[in-house]
Amino acid sequence: MDRRSFLKNTAIGGSAVAASALAAPAIAQGGRTLTMVTSVPDGFAVFDDAAVKFVDLVNSMSDGQITIEKRAAGQLVGAFEVFDAVSSGQADVYHSADYYFGGQHPGYYYFTAVPFGATGGEMISWYQHGGGKELHDELGEIFNLKSFMCGNTGHQPGGWFNKEINSAADLQGLRFRMPGIGGLALGRTGASVQNIPGGEIYQALSSGAIDGAEWIGPFADERLGFQEVCEFYYTGGFHEPGSVLTCAFNRDVWNELTPAQQAICETAAAATHHWSLSQSNYNNGAALQRLQQQGTKIMQFPDDVWDAFGRASKEALDEFMGDELFARIRASQEEAAAATYAWTSISDNVFQQQRARFNAL
Amino acid sequence: MDRRSFLKNTAIGGSAVAASALAAPAIAQGGRTLTMVTSVPDGFAVFDDAAVKFVDLVNSMSDGQITIEKRAAGQLVGAFEVFDAVSSGQADVYHSADYYFGGQHPGYYYFTAVPFGATGGEMISWYQHGGGKELHDELGEIFNLKSFMCGNTGHQPGGWFNKEINSAADLQGLRFRMPGIGGLALGRTGASVQNIPGGEIYQALSSGAIDGAEWIGPFADERLGFQEVCEFYYTGGFHEPGSVLTCAFNRDVWNELTPAQQAICETAAAATHHWSLSQSNYNNGAALQRLQQQGTKIMQFPDDVWDAFGRASKEALDEFMGDELFARIRASQEEAAAATYAWTSISDNVFQQQRARFNAL
Repeated sequence: MDRRSFLKNTAIGGSAVAASALAAPAIAQGGRTLTMVTSVPDGFAVFDDAAVKFVDLVNSMSDGQITIEKRAAGQLVGAFEVFDAVSSGQADVYHSADYYFGGQHPGYYYFTAVPFGATGGEMISWYQHGGGKELHDELGEIFNLKSFMCGNTGHQPGGWFNKEINSAADLQGLRFRMPGIGGLALGRTGASVQNIPGGEIYQALSSGAIDGAEWIGPFADERLGFQEVCEFYYTGGFHEPGSVLTCAFNRDVWNELTPAQQAICETAAAATHHWSLSQSNYNNGAALQRLQQQGTKIMQFPDDVWDAFGRASKEALDEFMGDELFARIRASQEEAAAATYAWTSISDNVFQQQRARFNAL
Repeated sequence: MDRRSFLKNTAIGGSAVAASALAAPAIAQGGRTLTMVTSVPDGFAVFDDAAVKFVDLVNSMSDGQITIEKRAAGQLVGAFEVFDAVSSGQADVYHSADYYFGGQHPGYYYFTAVPFGATGGEMISWYQHGGGKELHDELGEIFNLKSFMCGNTGHQPGGWFNKEINSAADLQGLRFRMPGIGGLALGRTGASVQNIPGGEIYQALSSGAIDGAEWIGPFADERLGFQEVCEFYYTGGFHEPGSVLTCAFNRDVWNELTPAQQAICETAAAATHHWSLSQSNYNNGAALQRLQQQGTKIMQFPDDVWDAFGRASKEALDEFMGDELFARIRASQEEAAAATYAWTSISDNVFQQQRARFNAL
């Protein structure tokens, strides 16, 4: 995923809709209406599904006391203006992916995904039990936001390729579409990183302008038809191991909510994350099967390619270590992910491997 | 875990507290008080933590409209009488593990855990997206209950042993403590299955009366001190791959709640599951490290032992296939777990293995 795709898809470029078009907080049926801005079009798979789920949960639980009205990217503000709009109070809430706002503070990368970082399950461990929520709050204090984990795309695959990647040497000069901090890392491996909007990837692959591209996952990628123009799908990826979506309230608005209303919003966000991560994991399995039936070859990178990814990821993240809060967030997430994996790797994962082996007998 | 441990621990045996001692639904500050009965003592790790979390979420979100009052095992009804108490309307809600009620209907086994079944993450996929919730509801209609997934212990380990298990032959005559349907399966491998209450396991291991035992997981097991009397801890287990806890409302009580109150209860349950599974996964990692520092040897069963477990599990579950609803529940869960694993095994798991390999370089 990237920023430009959204700008392209929502056809508003970087221009903001005039602030005067924003709805002022309103009182409806004795309750309060909150305007929520998002970074995606209505109906956008996974991302908007989570936003819709969150809005439905809050609205149904609050019984008219809070009504969240969702505004898709471009309706009130541009896709990537949601952070500033909510921080400044132009809108009340945003639903987005916080790594789009790494320019505001690099610590935000860790609240969506960083290369070689935490998986979806490890993210929950960190957030709920390992200090992640408190660090999100600390970042939010800087920007007048109150933020909660509120959705997850699941693991994002290594991507689509028109040739096999048999060694790290095959990355040299490879024209590959990958945005963000993952793209910065990939660039350090010798690949020629391209930042192409989502709507143009198919054509770029088809024409041979690029050699490969990543998008979101089987369920979402299938809809864009990449299986028609690429033979190889590398499902293990290094750049977004389990991308979190966030809902963030303007902190002044948040402070005006009653404790019960705050509890409703926070609990709705947690339930949405639970629902959303499992939505991706469930749907991706079926989509993958369909892709294989259409001839897609499911691949994994060899070890030396992973080594190159690992070294490049570390270098890309090290660039930000001069920031004290970034360094604390990084250490906290890495510790929680390691503690969780120390357990799940020798429990769930061992069981799953044995179950698969036995079922195949 | 088992039933007798609770009966023992809560010191009430099988005797019911007189129904007259049950609180009638009360109106407090314009709201409704619901009595929730549980199968564990107050403060019981993981189980009661989830119950407390659920109660806190409902009470804080409903702003006095619903107040759930929790009654530990034995305070109003016995640990395993909660199902009948709520089904009949003696109490309003229970929080328990539904496999305790496999005697009422064997389909309930699938709503906690079955041997060679679904992991915690796969359970969420099934419940939220693969038809699990609807099947839980279908069971609930039979017993006048409205039930929701509301907690998870995470993967339960193979257990503690005073000797290594090097082949399936080592299971012959092995005196091993394992209750429930897992124990039924284990008995088919040639092991001598013992059903010993939790509070007596330490002594039985210490005296040599049994050769091994399973309990819950590193975080809970550590508190019982098994590391002092057993050298070997097999962390991958076949019997409870990700045990779900349930909150179940009396259906008449449920139907009297407003739609907003129902949404609060259902969302609180989902958020509790999210919080609880990650609590176990996070804490088990740290507990495991402490156990290893005390000299516990972390082990995995060899393939032929897993094969014996797999065959025995299938046989134990096949016993119930005469029940049409059981068969539908089984097929539904197995399909959802397979779809989810088809994806996570080649995405999250591949990434995690490569991350671990790279980090160890």
